[in-house]
Amino acid sequence: MGVASIRKRFATTSDCSVLIGSQVAAPRLRGSGAELPRVRSLRFQERWTHTSLAEQAEIPVTQTNSLPVYSQEEVTKHCSIEKGVWVTYKGGVYDITDFVTVHPGGDKILLAAGKALEPFWALYGVHEQEHVLEILSEYKVGILRAEDSKKDDIKSADPYSTDPTRHPALIVNSVKPFNAEPPPVILTDNYITPTDIFFKRNHLPVPRIDPKTYRLEIEGLPGGTVSLTLDDLKTLFPKRTLIATIQCAGNRRSEMNKVKQVKGLNWGIAAISNAKWSGAYLRDVLYHYGFSPEVAAKARHVQFEGLDVDVTGTPYGASIPINKAMSEEGDVLLAYQMNGEDLPADHGFPVRAIVPGVVGARNIKWLGKIVISEEESQSHWQQNDYKGFSPGTDWDTVDFKSAPAIQELPVQSAITNLADGSSIDRDMDKVTVKGYAWSGGGREVVRVDVSLDGGKTWHVAKLQSSEEIESSAPSPPPGRAWAWKLWEIEIPLPEGAQELEVVCKAVDSSYNTQPDSVAPIWNLRGVLTNAWHQVRVKVK
Amino acid sequence: MGVASIRKRFATTSDCSVLIGSQVAAPRLRGSGAELPRVRSLRFQERWTHTSLAEQAEIPVTQTNSLPVYSQEEVTKHCSIEKGVWVTYKGGVYDITDFVTVHPGGDKILLAAGKALEPFWALYGVHEQEHVLEILSEYKVGILRAEDSKKDDIKSADPYSTDPTRHPALIVNSVKPFNAEPPPVILTDNYITPTDIFFKRNHLPVPRIDPKTYRLEIEGLPGGTVSLTLDDLKTLFPKRTLIATIQCAGNRRSEMNKVKQVKGLNWGIAAISNAKWSGAYLRDVLYHYGFSPEVAAKARHVQFEGLDVDVTGTPYGASIPINKAMSEEGDVLLAYQMNGEDLPADHGFPVRAIVPGVVGARNIKWLGKIVISEEESQSHWQQNDYKGFSPGTDWDTVDFKSAPAIQELPVQSAITNLADGSSIDRDMDKVTVKGYAWSGGGREVVRVDVSLDGGKTWHVAKLQSSEEIESSAPSPPPGRAWAWKLWEIEIPLPEGAQELEVVCKAVDSSYNTQPDSVAPIWNLRGVLTNAWHQVRVKVK
Repeated sequence: MGVASIRKRFATTSDCSVLIGSQVAAPRLRGSGAELPRVRSLRFQERWTHTSLAEQAEIPVTQTNSLPVYSQEEVTKHCSIEKGVWVTYKGGVYDITDFVTVHPGGDKILLAAGKALEPFWALYGVHEQEHVLEILSEYKVGILRAEDSKKDDIKSADPYSTDPTRHPALIVNSVKPFNAEPPPVILTDNYITPTDIFFKRNHLPVPRIDPKTYRLEIEGLPGGTVSLTLDDLKTLFPKRTLIATIQCAGNRRSEMNKVKQVKGLNWGIAAISNAKWSGAYLRDVLYHYGFSPEVAAKARHVQFEGLDVDVTGTPYGASIPINKAMSEEGDVLLAYQMNGEDLPADHGFPVRAIVPGVVGARNIKWLGKIVISEEESQSHWQQNDYKGFSPGTDWDTVDFKSAPAIQELPVQSAITNLADGSSIDRDMDKVTVKGYAWSGGGREVVRVDVSLDGGKTWHVAKLQSSEEIESSAPSPPPGRAWAWKLWEIEIPLPEGAQELEVVCKAVDSSYNTQPDSVAPIWNLRGVLTNAWHQVRVKVK
Repeated sequence: MGVASIRKRFATTSDCSVLIGSQVAAPRLRGSGAELPRVRSLRFQERWTHTSLAEQAEIPVTQTNSLPVYSQEEVTKHCSIEKGVWVTYKGGVYDITDFVTVHPGGDKILLAAGKALEPFWALYGVHEQEHVLEILSEYKVGILRAEDSKKDDIKSADPYSTDPTRHPALIVNSVKPFNAEPPPVILTDNYITPTDIFFKRNHLPVPRIDPKTYRLEIEGLPGGTVSLTLDDLKTLFPKRTLIATIQCAGNRRSEMNKVKQVKGLNWGIAAISNAKWSGAYLRDVLYHYGFSPEVAAKARHVQFEGLDVDVTGTPYGASIPINKAMSEEGDVLLAYQMNGEDLPADHGFPVRAIVPGVVGARNIKWLGKIVISEEESQSHWQQNDYKGFSPGTDWDTVDFKSAPAIQELPVQSAITNLADGSSIDRDMDKVTVKGYAWSGGGREVVRVDVSLDGGKTWHVAKLQSSEEIESSAPSPPPGRAWAWKLWEIEIPLPEGAQELEVVCKAVDSSYNTQPDSVAPIWNLRGVLTNAWHQVRVKVK
């Protein structure tokens, strides 16, 4: 893919600030990793670790003396694909134009065009690795003029310094932003996941919001913009409580990585949790402020914006279809409580959207703005992320416009009490298998099948009955089963078995079931992994 | 399974008429084919053919002379599992008590207890086969007294004699009742399936209804039973038109039969078709006649009864959840037109239910009665049929109460232009693959992947765009995509290939996808076959 076609895809304004994210329609980057040395693209696709190297590491400068010196003014001019993309880092000037198309983080790299990298790297901790610096060094074209290279100007305070402390049991996939999941073995100990170990999926630093000054703005209603206080939300509308499971689109991505490396956090099977949420129904709020048949006739989406922002001030954003938002059966909450207490900072304090049955990415935390619109959210995460593609689609051929934004998720299940590669005692009569099962769109899980022989023979697991679940979880009406089912089964240990291939698959109320294997649902973003979950267990 | 447990399952009244079907709660039969000689149960499970043998065949009578003579009165006493189940056929008396549990037609056999078989066999043409007579002969216990054995009394007129004539292109799976599908190769020639070749799935003879005397009764509303004329339906309510695909739960059952024999019509891939339906919205009608929040608070199901009845007068019946029936997004029709013309006799003239996104079995034809109820329909087809089970569940272990009645169907697709075992020309540059894709619950098909190598590599097919579809089919709102998508792709013929394993799989808007293989979704009733569709094609 040439620079010309990239040029077409990116709008730039006269002052050279790149229009990406929520500001213009769907900018799109097509990677072309195949053109780069394999070692480099592989490195980029490695699991994002959180080792902080940036402070210690020095760029391996080889030809500093022969390089020209540029002013910040000169660097600033190179702020687009058209004009070349230059950045500075610790006194060096880099022309990264050729790197833009292979940046694992996609088009967000253009935010730094013409500027210093430091504040952006502070935001995305994944860059704090030696090999990232190595790659950068290959693009060095000059030295920043000494007077422009005042460290204090470009060195940002760590935007994550006010992130909350987290539970030590969590398995951390990235520190900045913070992404972590509970160990599978404790995930299904409770029907309601304890708040502390509920999986955390942040895209940006956790914003610290004063509940006294917090305002929720609503745009797109006939009377103009509405501004609610937290107190308004709590007192003007009935408090509704529901139990809903939230799952990240990338749950189980690590299994997809085993087929072929994908881009994204290397989640295990626990980027899913279940909680009791309380708040006002979104529909109650919107009707209160003037939502009407006239509005409904034009509106097609409800957009959400978080108060978590990147260095340019662009908030995390997403949208959901209007019918999900307004339906009596949609149960979309503006939640201010989680498991009976104020939302914790990591889960959106003071207010978040709970969109039950829908991918976690649309359950916007730290909710700052709601927009009733004819258009989907134009955010990066709605347009160029969180979409599914064919296994045959790669970064050279992907067209993000060709796939719908993920909303409802497919049927899912996983085994939580047996780890792949673990052992069980030959003297046991029976093997106990436990796990979770859930489906999107309010479709209730109606059956979980478990196999010890890789799927040749199947046994039906016992679903946790509603009596076993706390009384607050009565059987849901059809199409509104927002919470997972925990399940368990004891299966006689097959005589003489050396190894078990333990497999589970769930069936939901639409009789959709999980596909057999991962490869045929592989996709370049590693989302929607819902093949049978398989663990191999040795019998000793 | 012993007679004692069967006894518990069947209620009998004092006059010995067995209460099955819609009259009592869920009678249930558990087969135990394993106890019978294998040859017999296999024969029963063979594809139901429509060869009419009954007229020619004679029962192989071996010991007639030594058998006692019984009066009809005596036979009539043996009308339950408790008292023994006797039947007569052409002057013979048969004690079929032991056969009841292995009857492929399930509990319906008890309708004939104490009576002559002829009128029942006339209703279910599948019995007109020599091996059925052979099996019957094994149960002979006596001779019917000559004066009770007047042929004219027991020989019924053929209840199918007034069935309409059908299109000769149809592939017939059973004549009585009539069940047929179009040849795959013509199925997808039209987005709207021509009425004549729309698949036909009848459970009973086609009732002939005079539109002038036709009445639709509605029970369960506050004002008591309502009775509508056809004219009421056409004039009191706005005429709504929608395009909806209907699929039989048994579509593609023949593929399940290849794994292990199941019970049911041996459908190919064409028990699915798409039509334009016009009528009144069910919700408009129910609100008009007094449906209210008070009714809604108690009601959980809308039951439908057809005017097609068996010999006991029991109608075909089914129900759907109340939220599907009453939702503004449910689009349930009381349809009186198909493709712009009066419904034809085979498709429910004068009125049928169209429940878009839901299994064909709930789209009741020849609709006679609607009941708003707290309960599901208690019909055989709702309670003891059209449900999905684990591959590990057999007729000895099945508990029909353990599974929900099928409503929404899972995502589906099939290849229509290439037949398994066919050949293509080596000289062709490209292979063209065509087919259909559809999903239940109004979930739009968003992608179809096609493989020529059994699923190792995948290509994305072109979905028929809305411009290519007649103008009456604009893009549907989310969750209301009731119609299938036709698709097509040209893939370069792999060099040197001797054989192609052509595979398709669809993805719907919830990103559910089809499972890889049939065996893990096998179930004893052979429903819900939605694994990848695969055809092997030789390259010559």
